[in-house]
Amino acid sequence: MSQELRTVWWEPGAVCLIDQLRLPHEEVTVRCTELAAVAAAIKTMVVRGAPAIGCTAAYGIALVATQSTATDAPALLRELEAAKATLDAQRPTAVNLAWATTRMLNQARALAPSGLEALRTGMLEEAHAVLHEDLAMCHAIGDYGAPLIPERGHVLTHCNAGGLATAGYGTALAPMRTAASQGRTLHVWVDETRPFLQGARLTAWELREAGIPLTLITDNMAGYMMQSGEVDCIIVGADRIVANGDVANKIGTYSLAVLANFHNIPFYVAAPSSTIDLSLATGDLIPIEQRSSDEVTHLGGQLIAPLGVNAAHPAFDVTPNRLITAIITERGVVYPPFTEGLSTAVRRS
Amino acid sequence: MSQELRTVWWEPGAVCLIDQLRLPHEEVTVRCTELAAVAAAIKTMVVRGAPAIGCTAAYGIALVATQSTATDAPALLRELEAAKATLDAQRPTAVNLAWATTRMLNQARALAPSGLEALRTGMLEEAHAVLHEDLAMCHAIGDYGAPLIPERGHVLTHCNAGGLATAGYGTALAPMRTAASQGRTLHVWVDETRPFLQGARLTAWELREAGIPLTLITDNMAGYMMQSGEVDCIIVGADRIVANGDVANKIGTYSLAVLANFHNIPFYVAAPSSTIDLSLATGDLIPIEQRSSDEVTHLGGQLIAPLGVNAAHPAFDVTPNRLITAIITERGVVYPPFTEGLSTAVRRS
Repeated sequence: MSQELRTVWWEPGAVCLIDQLRLPHEEVTVRCTELAAVAAAIKTMVVRGAPAIGCTAAYGIALVATQSTATDAPALLRELEAAKATLDAQRPTAVNLAWATTRMLNQARALAPSGLEALRTGMLEEAHAVLHEDLAMCHAIGDYGAPLIPERGHVLTHCNAGGLATAGYGTALAPMRTAASQGRTLHVWVDETRPFLQGARLTAWELREAGIPLTLITDNMAGYMMQSGEVDCIIVGADRIVANGDVANKIGTYSLAVLANFHNIPFYVAAPSSTIDLSLATGDLIPIEQRSSDEVTHLGGQLIAPLGVNAAHPAFDVTPNRLITAIITERGVVYPPFTEGLSTAVRRS
Repeated sequence: MSQELRTVWWEPGAVCLIDQLRLPHEEVTVRCTELAAVAAAIKTMVVRGAPAIGCTAAYGIALVATQSTATDAPALLRELEAAKATLDAQRPTAVNLAWATTRMLNQARALAPSGLEALRTGMLEEAHAVLHEDLAMCHAIGDYGAPLIPERGHVLTHCNAGGLATAGYGTALAPMRTAASQGRTLHVWVDETRPFLQGARLTAWELREAGIPLTLITDNMAGYMMQSGEVDCIIVGADRIVANGDVANKIGTYSLAVLANFHNIPFYVAAPSSTIDLSLATGDLIPIEQRSSDEVTHLGGQLIAPLGVNAAHPAFDVTPNRLITAIITERGVVYPPFTEGLSTAVRRS
């Protein structure tokens, strides 16, 4: 089995994160000892990837519970609710963030009648559970997804939906990790994924660490590789999957799906059921986070465009269900029409 | 009329170039006083863009003629032939390079019987003619192309097929320059164009200088903008157009054409007839330059991927004729089926 990473973990009094802004050149741990630091780490993308953000937010709630000076359970519950609101506001597109904080608060409300100490310790236990379940879900995604990769297959992926985007094993990368751990031969085309270069910095690092052969490409080379017959399937992650199977994911995912459709290449989305948001019927209802122009015009602190030029920066796009071959969840592979399968996956989780 | 740039020009004893590797932050002139420097400038992309490379190569031949110590015309002719071979070897995909050097050598052979001095001075005159004709062709492309841009249109372009890619007015940017000079309102989405960032560095600079509104995007945002209804047409340049209308251009062009086709957005190629290569029947015969992996893994000297990770770097791709709405040349707009129109454009030039 491919080695797991440690993306987010708990140490007494601190939510610990591997600093994803400094990878791949430096492996630095960020210790968040207060809620504001956790929120900032999510906002600035020290931690990114929908499931990893969910785990981080869960520990952020647990951190508040640990540190609170509240003298009774209702007072602590109010603090946890405020913490949830703070955390939820950091990234609008990924649903796992609100999913994790909602789960924490539901558990908090269930524990509150048992008193302050039960609530306090229960929050940390629940955050641990979120993390361990994430790892188990990712392994299940790997088990379901690995058979979809052809023997000696060339898989293309975008952004980083790997161990660094989750508690440690990955969603889109899970089928590749599992296939490799079964001794199968595969090769991964890694989209560099501008503007943040999650592919070049994180996925390339992670696959190299896992010993899986890869070749880095710029995002605009993906079409050429498909045209050249060099791509057997595409597997990407998801930040939110809505009821009809439309998928929000990192900007550029939609273009890949259109290209895959044109070339008759299977296009898979891999995500835990916590990514599924049945409250939205279609993808056009998903809020798309618009980030700073500076994040496009600068790279590593260096200005790469003329001074004063403005850039657009939609951080995500929405891929319509008709361009998606299947959605790989920890409950199994869901094929179109997605509505029923997604609904079942959520109900069972 | 939008102001022209000076991309390549002659000064006594030197081929002068604006250093496109240092734009947009510095405007530096490179003076090439020997053939090897001209060849290196082409190879390392101090000058890039098919027509600009053609003008540079023409002046490179003229430089050899000026400096030669040959004592008779046949000896000089042999030197010029060697210079052509050196220059042609620098970039394999752009046909304008060989087109310009072939034109220079044809003229040289015509002048050789008139003696050494006639040949020597004739070469510089011919190089000037290549440059002035390029400017005239680009203005004609602007005249033919401007009416294709809708009123208040949003145009998307890739790489830099502007004044910096030509003697000074541009191919893909010519219709935009001409439309703007007619007082029309337009806005340009500029693909940053990894790995060399010609869009971010050169097109953004050039449009800003010309006073044409633009917004920079990463290459992977183009699909999102099309899906959002924000793109009215796409205009790109070409490095080589073959007999059936297949087009080689900067990597990423093919992906844009597939996306445009999916969204029913007109996809135009703008290029002078010197870009048309009737000797090749179809695009799969075009040699695609494979450049160094380091040019993808490094940016501004900075490593952006893990050490030791390999990257692919096809510098161009081929867009099949069926994805192209029309080809804008200095002889008029050629519509599908392209074979006859392209053949006519070449014969008339």
